[in-house]
Amino acid sequence: MNRMLYWEDLQQGETVEIGRHTFTEQEMIEFARQFDPQPFHTDPEAAKQSFFGGLIASGWHTCAIAMRLMVQKYIGQTASAGSPGVDNIRWRAPVRPGDTITYRRVILASRPSESKPDLGLLHTRTEASNQRGEIVMTMEGWGLFRRRPRENAQ
Amino acid sequence: MNRMLYWEDLQQGETVEIGRHTFTEQEMIEFARQFDPQPFHTDPEAAKQSFFGGLIASGWHTCAIAMRLMVQKYIGQTASAGSPGVDNIRWRAPVRPGDTITYRRVILASRPSESKPDLGLLHTRTEASNQRGEIVMTMEGWGLFRRRPRENAQ
Repeated sequence: MNRMLYWEDLQQGETVEIGRHTFTEQEMIEFARQFDPQPFHTDPEAAKQSFFGGLIASGWHTCAIAMRLMVQKYIGQTASAGSPGVDNIRWRAPVRPGDTITYRRVILASRPSESKPDLGLLHTRTEASNQRGEIVMTMEGWGLFRRRPRENAQ
Repeated sequence: MNRMLYWEDLQQGETVEIGRHTFTEQEMIEFARQFDPQPFHTDPEAAKQSFFGGLIASGWHTCAIAMRLMVQKYIGQTASAGSPGVDNIRWRAPVRPGDTITYRRVILASRPSESKPDLGLLHTRTEASNQRGEIVMTMEGWGLFRRRPRENAQ
């Protein structure tokens, strides 16, 4: 079990690789059948005739994997209080079967919550790139984290 | 089989209810185990001790269901060419087990693509509200659709 991280432990400017994921055709189709059943996400043959010339991952799938990796990398160790939202999701290039996507996250800004004195807010940017270095997705998100309790302040 | 819809068929200002979905505890946990494994999304007992006082859906799950309903309601009938991105996702209130969420979409703006003469761009706002009328999520998205072929123009 790793130590608990508080808002004070996550510093502005900090860039980390949060993880990598190789998208298989099977999981792309499984996700899309549930949540984005467009033929270019669910049907390899139909996808060949589509605008994209072949199967591509749902953009929501690319984002959902980012979320999982963030939880595994650091949010799971924090006293997270959820997220107010996400801005500027941009699906810049298709993710195709077999692509290995590397996700990186930078903390753009950090400030205490104005309304809740026990919480702090982080503004982050996440960038996903494929094995050729092409950026496939970027997004900016907000996260709320508990501040270190005063009795443990150092 | 419904008729094919083109960019010209989707008009600025048009508001539609795109569908409703009741979130079960089981599906909330299944989604979160795969994509957002924070205890307040995956573990009803641990969730009681959390900031939220009980299990809540991952915000990405709320968005993914919006996408499915949009495909079922109209995108599946269109010559869709994907989406450049989504802005201003705001998770405004928790979605809890048994909540029935109604999704509505308004077309904020519509214009031809500048770079691709066979495509048009729609800017939409999606609003999700629960059975008490509380807004739980809003987002604004971009969609690319094929324009009606000239030989079929009316």
